[in-house]
Amino acid sequence: MSAIERACRLFTELAEISADPPGVTRASFGPVENTAHEMIRRESETIGLEHRTDAIGNLYVTLPGLDRNAPVLMTGSHLDSVPHGGNYDGAAGVLAGLYMLEELSAGPTPPCDVTLMVIRAEEMIWFPEHYLGSRAAFGLLPNDTPDRVRRSDTGQTLGEHMTISGFDPQPIRDGQAQFDAKRIRAFVEVHIEQGPVLVEADLPIGIVTGIRGNIRHRFASITGETTHAGGVPRASRRDAVMAGSELVSSLEQWWHQIEANGGDMVLTLGEFSTNPERHGITKVPGHVGFTLDMRSQNPAILDRFDAYLKARSAEIAAKRDVAIDLGPATRAAPAPMDDTVQSDLVAAAQHCNVGTMSLPSGGGHDSATFAGLGVPSGMLFIRNENGSHNPEEHMSLDDFHCAARVLTKWARCMLSSA
Amino acid sequence: MSAIERACRLFTELAEISADPPGVTRASFGPVENTAHEMIRRESETIGLEHRTDAIGNLYVTLPGLDRNAPVLMTGSHLDSVPHGGNYDGAAGVLAGLYMLEELSAGPTPPCDVTLMVIRAEEMIWFPEHYLGSRAAFGLLPNDTPDRVRRSDTGQTLGEHMTISGFDPQPIRDGQAQFDAKRIRAFVEVHIEQGPVLVEADLPIGIVTGIRGNIRHRFASITGETTHAGGVPRASRRDAVMAGSELVSSLEQWWHQIEANGGDMVLTLGEFSTNPERHGITKVPGHVGFTLDMRSQNPAILDRFDAYLKARSAEIAAKRDVAIDLGPATRAAPAPMDDTVQSDLVAAAQHCNVGTMSLPSGGGHDSATFAGLGVPSGMLFIRNENGSHNPEEHMSLDDFHCAARVLTKWARCMLSSA
Repeated sequence: MSAIERACRLFTELAEISADPPGVTRASFGPVENTAHEMIRRESETIGLEHRTDAIGNLYVTLPGLDRNAPVLMTGSHLDSVPHGGNYDGAAGVLAGLYMLEELSAGPTPPCDVTLMVIRAEEMIWFPEHYLGSRAAFGLLPNDTPDRVRRSDTGQTLGEHMTISGFDPQPIRDGQAQFDAKRIRAFVEVHIEQGPVLVEADLPIGIVTGIRGNIRHRFASITGETTHAGGVPRASRRDAVMAGSELVSSLEQWWHQIEANGGDMVLTLGEFSTNPERHGITKVPGHVGFTLDMRSQNPAILDRFDAYLKARSAEIAAKRDVAIDLGPATRAAPAPMDDTVQSDLVAAAQHCNVGTMSLPSGGGHDSATFAGLGVPSGMLFIRNENGSHNPEEHMSLDDFHCAARVLTKWARCMLSSA
Repeated sequence: MSAIERACRLFTELAEISADPPGVTRASFGPVENTAHEMIRRESETIGLEHRTDAIGNLYVTLPGLDRNAPVLMTGSHLDSVPHGGNYDGAAGVLAGLYMLEELSAGPTPPCDVTLMVIRAEEMIWFPEHYLGSRAAFGLLPNDTPDRVRRSDTGQTLGEHMTISGFDPQPIRDGQAQFDAKRIRAFVEVHIEQGPVLVEADLPIGIVTGIRGNIRHRFASITGETTHAGGVPRASRRDAVMAGSELVSSLEQWWHQIEANGGDMVLTLGEFSTNPERHGITKVPGHVGFTLDMRSQNPAILDRFDAYLKARSAEIAAKRDVAIDLGPATRAAPAPMDDTVQSDLVAAAQHCNVGTMSLPSGGGHDSATFAGLGVPSGMLFIRNENGSHNPEEHMSLDDFHCAARVLTKWARCMLSSA
């Protein structure tokens, strides 16, 4: 069996074990993510690779090098998915790494270890912490994370989910790293593009220039008053939907202005809902819950948005006599990718005769953690139809093969220059 | 026991049998509505009144007159409530009617029958037909109603619910009336005010000038595309929440203009929600479902709103590449109250030394059915704190007593002039 045939078979197996129509669901630190990790361990043994699982559940698959103490060449991505998501978000990077290791294992022993890191819990929809698995691996999570952060579907803490899955939350509480970032020579993550840019450019892969930072409010709400839809005059209403619509429209207009001035941002209110327990066609809506996700490559725009959001919310709340509670915010800093890694990836793509282009990453990725630690980091995006975080996400195996070959070529060039 | 003591006890009993914290729930053609009707039958027997339940479940409690064939003096209201609503919406009018009959029964036999009609299924949140019980009583419902219209919570048809409760949907299918409207001399409905006007005016009761008509869309939706919140540029998005917010804000601005020109209307989007099965903080929302309820005393404003809603929806849908489906609409015409009944009620209130004012009804009421049939009709509103269709609705027993005394005085004047 060739490495690409193995990848094809493993994509199918992954889709089968995680089917949850429409699409697939692989919850962070859930049974399906655990099974997917077990699948990679099994395959790495078949190929003849070393593997190790750290105390918190990240998996490291390694082709041993001649000098086991030399800085490691690393790739990696995640296996969890959003609920009813697509099969390739995360998994494509893991299987591209496995492809690379299998191809390299057929050649001479490399001068240093080459490692695929299969990272836990990247999809923030489950646990509201950015890059949870990679930050935990490097001891970067707040110490109270295992006991404070709860999974959105079960309500159980991260620590409880880790323990059920056979792992140990204590190193997170102790801020103890599972891997020394200084031992990583370079890190490249392969991932499907989560937007339409490569499709529109008709190119199979892209080289990422940087990852947008973000501000997220997961539990925002507007509270007015539930009253009768017919008998209350406009001036006496405290309508949460009309207040929310004004806020959304204001924020969208602000976004237009930023873009008109050449600024980078995207804004999403992915959840926006009256209270199903209390709402009704003949009731003025007294409550709306919503989420907010704003991203930019520019830290100054993140700051300005934060200030505008708070000021506009206060204005609307005062004018309409409603309470606008934005709730707790999380924030991730923008992460530029390493210039040398980018140019090395461009060279590898040219060598493979694969067309490519440079583009920013709108989505957050674990490579931001590595970049933040000073590891020379890069990303390869794979063209993807129909968007991401939805069941219709679609990557062709040909495009995956392009990315896997470019990743392998990049590694070969790095190893030959070691 | 005095008539007011009986009313006080029955309000308490009603609250107990329908408690569904927060508030009370008495679903149309549900077990609790049935039990509430049974309670009124029991009390009417205690007082020594006649009662009859028609084939479709409306209850008629009658103090017999000297001439059983003379036109009937009638009052009435409903006993169903919205989910988690207040105890007085509907029930206050039924118990005011019972108070009136008990007071009149202590006097001489009236020249004509005096009847309290306890009407079924007024709250449209259960079955999407206006004034269902009263229109059924007069053979006014579309013939397919029992088999077409389903209850919002159970999904069962009206016909199924009627049959389970021991009634017969066939007369509705046959357009057969249960009561001849020509036999009604006049009809007055007592009801809590569903807005804050009497509270703000510091008056216990109000005389209704007319009932607003309405346009309702119960199953409206916006469908765009669910995509990744970070990776999709603004121009490629088809965001249902942003489209919906623009629509809501536009409609609210239109409302402002109508009011600025002295026009009467209220507008409510009581339900507005992304799809809980598909939405998430990191997904561009691809779907929003919403309801729309617009009311006006002016038929021309209803028409103009309808045209604006459709035109604006089409514009926003085209501009944003989303589908806006307003779904089926229901419509109720405005119903002015009878001038003579209004002035008679004012005179009765003056005689009772009860302060009053004239005001429109924002909510729809069964009296619109009677007015539409040419029955001289009127309404007495009772001051009500904290709005209506919510658990905090509150009427004082003193204010109820004012309304019940004015209703009784009005009936005495009518009977003495018969």
